[in-house]
Amino acid sequence: MGTKTSCKMDKSSSLYRFSLILALLILPALQAAAQSAPTWIWYPGDYEIWLANKMQNRRTERGSFFPPFWRLDNHYVLMDFHKDVDLAAPEEIAIWAEGQYNVKIDSKLIPGYPEKVVVPAGKHRINIKVYSQEVVPSIFISGKTIVSDSSWLVTFEDKEWIDETGKVSGQSGTTWLNAGYWNFNSPDNRPSAFKLATTPASAVKVENVEGGRLVDFGKETFGFVRLHGLKGEGKLKLYYGESREEALSVDHCETLDEIQIGRDSRNDSTLDLSKAFRFVFLKTEGSAAVDSISMLYEYLPVEVRGSFRCSDPLLNEIWDIGNYTMQLSTREFFIDGIKRDRWIWSGDAYQSYLMNYYLFFDNPSVTRTTLALRGKDPVTSHINTIMDYTFYWFMGIYDYYLYSGDKHFLQQCYPKMKSLMQYCLERRNKDGLMEGLSGDWVFIDWAEGLSKKGEVSFEQLLLCRSLETMAICASLTGDAEDAFYKKEAEDLRKKLFSIYWNPNLQAFVHSRVNGVPVSHVTRYTNMFSIFFGYLDENQKKGVLNSVLLNKAVPKITTPYMRFYELEALCALGEQKRVLQEIRDYWGGMLKAGATSFWEEFNPEKSGADHYAMYGRKFGKSLCHAWGASPIYLFGKYYLGVSPTSPGYKTYIIEPETGGLEWMEGKVPTPDGEVELYVSKKEIRVTGAAAGTGTLRFRSSSRPVCKEGTITQKAPGQYEMEVLPGKKYTIRYTRVER
Amino acid sequence: MGTKTSCKMDKSSSLYRFSLILALLILPALQAAAQSAPTWIWYPGDYEIWLANKMQNRRTERGSFFPPFWRLDNHYVLMDFHKDVDLAAPEEIAIWAEGQYNVKIDSKLIPGYPEKVVVPAGKHRINIKVYSQEVVPSIFISGKTIVSDSSWLVTFEDKEWIDETGKVSGQSGTTWLNAGYWNFNSPDNRPSAFKLATTPASAVKVENVEGGRLVDFGKETFGFVRLHGLKGEGKLKLYYGESREEALSVDHCETLDEIQIGRDSRNDSTLDLSKAFRFVFLKTEGSAAVDSISMLYEYLPVEVRGSFRCSDPLLNEIWDIGNYTMQLSTREFFIDGIKRDRWIWSGDAYQSYLMNYYLFFDNPSVTRTTLALRGKDPVTSHINTIMDYTFYWFMGIYDYYLYSGDKHFLQQCYPKMKSLMQYCLERRNKDGLMEGLSGDWVFIDWAEGLSKKGEVSFEQLLLCRSLETMAICASLTGDAEDAFYKKEAEDLRKKLFSIYWNPNLQAFVHSRVNGVPVSHVTRYTNMFSIFFGYLDENQKKGVLNSVLLNKAVPKITTPYMRFYELEALCALGEQKRVLQEIRDYWGGMLKAGATSFWEEFNPEKSGADHYAMYGRKFGKSLCHAWGASPIYLFGKYYLGVSPTSPGYKTYIIEPETGGLEWMEGKVPTPDGEVELYVSKKEIRVTGAAAGTGTLRFRSSSRPVCKEGTITQKAPGQYEMEVLPGKKYTIRYTRVER
Repeated sequence: MGTKTSCKMDKSSSLYRFSLILALLILPALQAAAQSAPTWIWYPGDYEIWLANKMQNRRTERGSFFPPFWRLDNHYVLMDFHKDVDLAAPEEIAIWAEGQYNVKIDSKLIPGYPEKVVVPAGKHRINIKVYSQEVVPSIFISGKTIVSDSSWLVTFEDKEWIDETGKVSGQSGTTWLNAGYWNFNSPDNRPSAFKLATTPASAVKVENVEGGRLVDFGKETFGFVRLHGLKGEGKLKLYYGESREEALSVDHCETLDEIQIGRDSRNDSTLDLSKAFRFVFLKTEGSAAVDSISMLYEYLPVEVRGSFRCSDPLLNEIWDIGNYTMQLSTREFFIDGIKRDRWIWSGDAYQSYLMNYYLFFDNPSVTRTTLALRGKDPVTSHINTIMDYTFYWFMGIYDYYLYSGDKHFLQQCYPKMKSLMQYCLERRNKDGLMEGLSGDWVFIDWAEGLSKKGEVSFEQLLLCRSLETMAICASLTGDAEDAFYKKEAEDLRKKLFSIYWNPNLQAFVHSRVNGVPVSHVTRYTNMFSIFFGYLDENQKKGVLNSVLLNKAVPKITTPYMRFYELEALCALGEQKRVLQEIRDYWGGMLKAGATSFWEEFNPEKSGADHYAMYGRKFGKSLCHAWGASPIYLFGKYYLGVSPTSPGYKTYIIEPETGGLEWMEGKVPTPDGEVELYVSKKEIRVTGAAAGTGTLRFRSSSRPVCKEGTITQKAPGQYEMEVLPGKKYTIRYTRVER
Repeated sequence: MGTKTSCKMDKSSSLYRFSLILALLILPALQAAAQSAPTWIWYPGDYEIWLANKMQNRRTERGSFFPPFWRLDNHYVLMDFHKDVDLAAPEEIAIWAEGQYNVKIDSKLIPGYPEKVVVPAGKHRINIKVYSQEVVPSIFISGKTIVSDSSWLVTFEDKEWIDETGKVSGQSGTTWLNAGYWNFNSPDNRPSAFKLATTPASAVKVENVEGGRLVDFGKETFGFVRLHGLKGEGKLKLYYGESREEALSVDHCETLDEIQIGRDSRNDSTLDLSKAFRFVFLKTEGSAAVDSISMLYEYLPVEVRGSFRCSDPLLNEIWDIGNYTMQLSTREFFIDGIKRDRWIWSGDAYQSYLMNYYLFFDNPSVTRTTLALRGKDPVTSHINTIMDYTFYWFMGIYDYYLYSGDKHFLQQCYPKMKSLMQYCLERRNKDGLMEGLSGDWVFIDWAEGLSKKGEVSFEQLLLCRSLETMAICASLTGDAEDAFYKKEAEDLRKKLFSIYWNPNLQAFVHSRVNGVPVSHVTRYTNMFSIFFGYLDENQKKGVLNSVLLNKAVPKITTPYMRFYELEALCALGEQKRVLQEIRDYWGGMLKAGATSFWEEFNPEKSGADHYAMYGRKFGKSLCHAWGASPIYLFGKYYLGVSPTSPGYKTYIIEPETGGLEWMEGKVPTPDGEVELYVSKKEIRVTGAAAGTGTLRFRSSSRPVCKEGTITQKAPGQYEMEVLPGKKYTIRYTRVER
């Protein structure tokens, strides 16, 4: 008809799924060729917000819909894409769009809804304008030299009007950003049809028990339950459990499904909503019956590029389970608990980013999550409503820049950093400190009796770090405000010490209430201040002994804060002690039956008591991203690899075995992996494909390497430059700490 | 299946259309009973934005999609509705939602997706949370005493979290607004399925000409073309025209449709997209053929409550055509040109509001349009990108409050007024004046050679009026900023005179460029300053003679600015002169064949030259809301009725016949109409059902009224109080001005 729309969305088709998997498999190759291969593009952040809305609203609690309690934003419905071209010869471009669209060349409208347009030779501006209410306006353009990619500019207000004579105003006053994209690299692979990949999986054990059938998939998993051989009429009730106890607890399991089957039911059925579980307990009513139950495992296809192996099989198992925990929780976005929330939490995501750099090095997962968390202006609450989570968001962007070297993302994101920081600064009290105002959740950690009153030192510490991040990013993007942020950060850092540092206790105290610093010490501020580099050597020693190793200071029971506690110890050279902690704590979870790492673990509990939280018998998440921190610790503090300039242009390799006989592994970088093997007598290292490494180690003998030049830096301390792709073997005599 | 969604949208069904019409017909009754009858509710502004997106993206230009060039916002996808109840007995409520939803009572989740819930006796809080990406989250609740209406509170962030023990945080820090609603008063009448009403209409003339068939519907109209008796195979080409010339100009008509018909085509077909036209020119290709063409006239069912009749048939015809022009352009929102833009323009809408108060008095059309125009924060451009249009938006809200008395709307809208004004104030230059910055369109009027350079006096005048509006609204809503806005308004008003008033010219000059006021005078600032009440008697006389009646000052050629020019003359008591202008100008359009009033009219042009604009042969809109201003002038300045306190609690009736033998008419108020008949010897007046009127008139004899007490205010000047619903007959001797 007259008003054809171009919106031919086809979300079904196995072809689609196949092409998605194909696209994901060949993603690295395509990314390298991003300038010449077309991909679907959109307004940066819009698709991420839209997809996050879809994902975050999939949480259910005992069959009820359970959405987030913070604001969810929405995409711009009308988008202008443009590209300036200079063609040697006329060129035909093919156009696909999600939404109604029009095409202009040099501000002149092409009639109708053109699927192909010839752009004349010479300099021209192509504008494509797309409207879509339901899905994110996006385009795919394919020509010989003109292709849709991030070089296209986008705006939600082109401000191009005409006067009464027909004169075009131009597009002054319009802010253009580079288009956002991911990996939708063919016209049929539409962003709106995105689905995670799936693969069939079978149960490992089936048991008839308590009047039903208990199906065990052998380990924590995530996917769509499939019911085979449906027969009869009546209800099927499915009770999911991360533990056997949970699945069998029909009154208290966290997730469940009820299905009515009857004459119209097909023989086999796959449930609509994927779920996280290990066990499924099936009960039937009426004549309803099921032959068998299997599942479609649902996952984001990301390559595992990092690795770790050592002489202690328990630690290897911990790394493996950490890896699996990360695979389960790295989905449309980095999420925390797969059974329960399916929401994006900034503090949790921050840890996933760090683990990601030592496992997948999947940048799109970081930027997707960062953009989704931030949403849009105006800022009306902290991220996830949590004050500390706002600060982690800032810190995550700096880390991303450091690891990936992706300055472009930082530049595009910077205006959103500014407005969020503005929100924070406006919420400071007369002393320039932040305390929880109405609607602010001061989280810190799940810990009994933890006070959130007054001006908590931990929040000031994170604000200080966020201001430092702002100063760096301002300077990188050329914003003149860098001096302002620097000054604010310096002032606050001074206040941290003048208000909270207690020289008698050799520690930062927990908070200040009614203008008076409390005498109570908690671990949080103290351990972060170590790896933030805020302490001098004496203060570090003070904190180590009076806080970190002091059993009188309340213990941490979440892997979340154990992450930072162990990082602090590692930063103090306590790798040996930390290894033992990892063996005890994460090994303890394995002993308690973990097949993925948990949201919280208290070794003093036993049996099904482990599973309770939030006042619910099975409230605890048994697969929680923040449980996987050994992935990060092994990579950064044992293999000892980390960037010293953005994007691994330079990096350090400073292995610490913590007393292990040997260890080996790979650490991914933007260009290949750094490979390392360390024993008592030998270090073998291969540089990443790009960037220059510095190997730093201790030896009690004079180390020897044929392939490189070793320099002595201090008695028993050596360094060697590691060149791109080059393999080195060093003979030495290890010195334990 | 397990994850049932409640989103059962059914946009088809003639039952729906019937129920819509029914709902609209009984709307006044239902509005009166708003507290006891349920209606669909949503976040205020969200449905308006969503519906405006749908409407504003229906513009096409010669078959191409032609969307707006400003930012279109989007609804919040996740909404929390709540209501605190205190029940004498338990009560079952039925729940409908557009979107996935859950229900909580006292923060406790009800299992599943309950369609019915029993609320226990006593005090309870009901929360319903709804997620919908595609359409606006909304609910319909029906119980004995609990019903969804605007007393429900809504928020896009409920900030209700739980701690690790399961304790609920409460909902501190959350901003709640009263729910928005319109007239969706049954569960099946879903907001997302909204369609305007339609009714079949036939052509008045069919003519075979220029190798095709020209169908004439007799007058400007709007609707869906219907093709009857489709046969054969090939293309049908439809060319639309507001004029015969346009429809026959297959290369230059503004809108067209191309339809391919073939074996699968049904016998009859109604086009998908409604269009504005009087003529349809049909050409066929191949064996394609059509028996006949009719249409479905598409309209918003609003009651015409105002009327005007007088001794001059030409003026009556002008009122009728103005009425029809308003009916055609009062749709989902008040739009301007029905053929072309289908967009909401703030300056145009401002006039529609004023005409509406004298024709339909349809408040929802005003608030819908106001909310849609404003969109959401952050403000990134002027409304429609036009500086003056931002100011009209402020002024429109005050007028709405004055006419309707709807303080509640003002209160809910006030935060958006503040942030928009903040945007304006931040764009002032060092002298506190606003000039067009990058991306700002300084419109004023369509007029050849009109300068937009420097600090245009007209923009400062409108900003001043907007600041006055802010001061009043701040004070009404209890915002302490009222003094600030008052001071800013006063300062700017002083500057208006010190910078732009030229005592030699007895006029405001057009602008200041590079710090120097120009000597050039235009009508805009001068005429507005009259009815804004900024001038003293001497200045008024000066402006009347040196500007309004001075032919050397560039003439106004748009009905848009004629609206204000004639209003200024009326405010100066020049009703007689204005009547003649109306006869000449609007009568001139009728003579030129108008069946609705135009966007622009230059009496010096002739034939098809009238239809050209924007550099296009048929670019001009021949049905433009701003063309209908006699509707407003007759009501306000001839019948002379207007509120003197909000919502017509008090009002004035000050008839001026402008020399007519007699006139009569009705002016709608929130409570019924004021009815008036005026001849040389008699005035008959009936008060509105509520509010107290003051009839003010001149008489050379002592006036007599049996039903009321007439007071002499000055020699020959009289006043009489008009009580609610009471009819008065006054014998007098009219004194012409």
